[in-house]
Amino acid sequence: MEWNVQKMKKQERLQRASHMMRGKIIQAENIVPVLESVVYPNDRVVLEGDNQKQATFLSQALASVDPAIVHGLTMLIPAVSREEHLDLFEKGIARELNFAFAGMQSVRLAKMLEDNQLKIGSIHTYLELYARLLVDLIPNVCLVAAEMADEDGNLFTGYSTEDTPILVEATAFKDGIVIVQVNDIVEKGVLPRVDIPGDWVDIVVRSDEPYQMEALFTRDPAKIRESHILMAMMTIKGIYAKHGVMSLNHGIGYNGAAIELILPTYGESLGLKGKICRHWVLNPHPMMIPAIEKGWVESIYAFGGEKGMEKYTEARSDIFFTGNDGTLRSNRAYAQLAGLYGIDLFLGATLQMDYLGNSSTVTSGRLSGFGGAPNMGHNTRGRRHSSPAWKEMMANPGRSLIGGKKLIVQMLSSSGRFGNNFVPELDAVEIGRNAGLDSVPVMVYGEDVTHVVTEQGIAYLYLAESEDERTTLMGAVAQGTPIGDMASPAVVERLRKAGKVALPDDLDIDPALATKDLLAAKSLDELVEWSGGLYEIPDSFKK
Amino acid sequence: MEWNVQKMKKQERLQRASHMMRGKIIQAENIVPVLESVVYPNDRVVLEGDNQKQATFLSQALASVDPAIVHGLTMLIPAVSREEHLDLFEKGIARELNFAFAGMQSVRLAKMLEDNQLKIGSIHTYLELYARLLVDLIPNVCLVAAEMADEDGNLFTGYSTEDTPILVEATAFKDGIVIVQVNDIVEKGVLPRVDIPGDWVDIVVRSDEPYQMEALFTRDPAKIRESHILMAMMTIKGIYAKHGVMSLNHGIGYNGAAIELILPTYGESLGLKGKICRHWVLNPHPMMIPAIEKGWVESIYAFGGEKGMEKYTEARSDIFFTGNDGTLRSNRAYAQLAGLYGIDLFLGATLQMDYLGNSSTVTSGRLSGFGGAPNMGHNTRGRRHSSPAWKEMMANPGRSLIGGKKLIVQMLSSSGRFGNNFVPELDAVEIGRNAGLDSVPVMVYGEDVTHVVTEQGIAYLYLAESEDERTTLMGAVAQGTPIGDMASPAVVERLRKAGKVALPDDLDIDPALATKDLLAAKSLDELVEWSGGLYEIPDSFKK
Repeated sequence: MEWNVQKMKKQERLQRASHMMRGKIIQAENIVPVLESVVYPNDRVVLEGDNQKQATFLSQALASVDPAIVHGLTMLIPAVSREEHLDLFEKGIARELNFAFAGMQSVRLAKMLEDNQLKIGSIHTYLELYARLLVDLIPNVCLVAAEMADEDGNLFTGYSTEDTPILVEATAFKDGIVIVQVNDIVEKGVLPRVDIPGDWVDIVVRSDEPYQMEALFTRDPAKIRESHILMAMMTIKGIYAKHGVMSLNHGIGYNGAAIELILPTYGESLGLKGKICRHWVLNPHPMMIPAIEKGWVESIYAFGGEKGMEKYTEARSDIFFTGNDGTLRSNRAYAQLAGLYGIDLFLGATLQMDYLGNSSTVTSGRLSGFGGAPNMGHNTRGRRHSSPAWKEMMANPGRSLIGGKKLIVQMLSSSGRFGNNFVPELDAVEIGRNAGLDSVPVMVYGEDVTHVVTEQGIAYLYLAESEDERTTLMGAVAQGTPIGDMASPAVVERLRKAGKVALPDDLDIDPALATKDLLAAKSLDELVEWSGGLYEIPDSFKK
Repeated sequence: MEWNVQKMKKQERLQRASHMMRGKIIQAENIVPVLESVVYPNDRVVLEGDNQKQATFLSQALASVDPAIVHGLTMLIPAVSREEHLDLFEKGIARELNFAFAGMQSVRLAKMLEDNQLKIGSIHTYLELYARLLVDLIPNVCLVAAEMADEDGNLFTGYSTEDTPILVEATAFKDGIVIVQVNDIVEKGVLPRVDIPGDWVDIVVRSDEPYQMEALFTRDPAKIRESHILMAMMTIKGIYAKHGVMSLNHGIGYNGAAIELILPTYGESLGLKGKICRHWVLNPHPMMIPAIEKGWVESIYAFGGEKGMEKYTEARSDIFFTGNDGTLRSNRAYAQLAGLYGIDLFLGATLQMDYLGNSSTVTSGRLSGFGGAPNMGHNTRGRRHSSPAWKEMMANPGRSLIGGKKLIVQMLSSSGRFGNNFVPELDAVEIGRNAGLDSVPVMVYGEDVTHVVTEQGIAYLYLAESEDERTTLMGAVAQGTPIGDMASPAVVERLRKAGKVALPDDLDIDPALATKDLLAAKSLDELVEWSGGLYEIPDSFKK
């Protein structure tokens, strides 16, 4: 019996392209025939669509192969973010999609699924998809992007390492073919640093344009509303300070941005510097600049790079993880790991929550996936180390021996543009059913949420003694909406006295002070000022 | 304000040792003065004690520094496994210990804690400790072991990569000093492969002896008892086949070994090949050889290397992850990740379980820590992809939207050498209290256990509708012991009919057939035969 078939096949594949290769390097104009030589029908192919970075050149090339030669592919794409990611299925090149996030392509994806133009393997979180690359979705081919390569294939991923290392490792060590597009090829010995050894790389191509990169996490302070600021004040005082939260992650959005921007004003006035929020797992949000400059932050470990923060992260290497060359080293797999096990709190915003506290960002006609939030936004029972904040969450242990819980904070307005945000049943329930999903696409489970913050107050769900009380607590901070009827004024009073609900008054917060004056920076321009000119506003945020 | 202090300090540290460095290389006899130059008082120091691999030379050197120069260290040691790991504390070089597993040193560690000779930061699982290296336990210095380095510091970790990559990455990209002991230093360009780029490495030393390595997971088939075999038969038929388990991990021990060794005999007779157990996250257990040779296994992703399996893994590269050089590439951080999110089932054995299903291997006088089991042995609610086995575990969802559960199987005899194995309160409760731990050192929480297997039968805990019923189900398979009194014969009958408990008879298993004849190999020698001479019995297993 033959036990090294994969190694032989790898040689065979590379042999078929060898006439177009000079060492590991191929010419850009040969990328399509090279792919037609090394990608076999029915292969599993990883394509680097990340949150921020896109292997644009390679995704376009793969969408240009002849479907008579390459077809039936199972695509593994962390973030489905470009037209050609889905063109692959329309053209008959690919058949099955496994992904974590779909963002911009979520509407088209839902439509294509309905029209039977593709089969969805599974929708994952990032970390789950990486895990399966090592188990039952081992790739045959991997298409990724880096900043530079040298002639031996050593890679400098640059500022935005993101998903690249784990995608490459899973492929390279199971005899898959690793193909990398780079912005530049340099001689041996002159790479600023090596992020991935050349040994792991088979084919390098200099793309005709640099890979695409987006500033996904940047939020313009000018767009933060006063309700965000009030909720931020309550969160800082009623959650971060109350429990002594030292390490945390903020999801994307204006709610987190408001907190980040009032730490050095409101937080400072409460004397909280050094007592909360010292260690972060976070993309390099520019909104963090004032807090960093004022000495609030000890460390930030990043998932990816955020456009515009290149020079700032390099100049603040005491805070950020950087290489000897000075450039940020991000790593989504490790940051998701840090966000899972290394921090006490995850804070996210949502648009819809059911009466048990389940929330979802899935809305009608979109199949947007999960990204990383469910991984960071759940209480892992695999954790065994303790911290004061974590321990405090086991207020009602019953007979359980579990020592603590991660703090999972969900922020939402009690009502929004489309009516009530608290609903008896999530839209996701019907959407999941219609899309034929195996389970309801919930972003964060009610079982895991410890705090719900609305513009009315904080519901301390970790203190709820039953599912019904969970509902009542949310009702107490959504008065004037249907779920509010579950908590009469007398009940609200009782819950406030019991410390299970806190309104601004209970926290000694004057809502009239929740104005933009509290924002340490009121615009992106002011962030540039705070940074001493190191932060550069991305083009997409310029008029 | 100065924002690159860590980078400057790193240069300062290296400068102090520069007269002993030729490029990155130092002589073995200079290791103690080099450590005295680059390690500063109160540093956080990672020391590579892994499960299998030990940076022996560096741990001995660190224990030899002058405590007047180097003291107050916080040690970060995944596995505390050598005398000198604890000598550091007796000598006043180190003060605080953060670790995941203590194995051989667990008795001495408990004693030293009692005598106030060290402070325990936290006891972690492996993955948690790695996570905190990126958040609030960022190392200043990292001491690791590899097989070979070249003159630029590029590392070939060889067969047992284990924890090295993540320990190095966390240190190298936050301006810490990375020091590596290697068995050999070679010229540029001749390393079999590069596992870690030289850019990430500051100091390389060739140790006087190769690093220590143990065959921790090997179990001699000759020591497997018939009760193990009966439990293995029930597990295969009543769990793996019943739920269609495709991907899994086995903990260390004879219970897992028995399953591995009867897959190609008993499993084959049931026609299960290809229908269960195709993808594994597992060290290269030699006990897997017969199953591999008979075509049961598609892939195995390994935490570390298991001594004796070097040639076999290389010759079976279709199954194992290997480099272009042919050698196994293991990676504990990624394997723990795969074990967390990429598999359907974790199976472990335990010595003691309480009436709620909590189990612990912590016994009196030992502080052995957790290793990796709690990470793999819990139901992560961060998972969003589905599988048939996972989905089946949500038999009683109530109002919950959660779509599935990981299968967590715990095996134990109903009674053992020291009396009953099911106890009203775990010994760990009092031990944790006496050691001043923040929470009870439970290995696997009862809330997470889906199946308990004893020599009497299987309790399907995932079907329990209350905490009390969980107890009754365990009682049904521990008749004749105190917990057995919780399930009268009539109750047992009812539970068998309801499918909540299965005895051998219910599974159509004849206990008389549970003999050693079912083992595909009855000794390590027979495993060598199965492997065609590729497997080499480690010295520690030879008389």
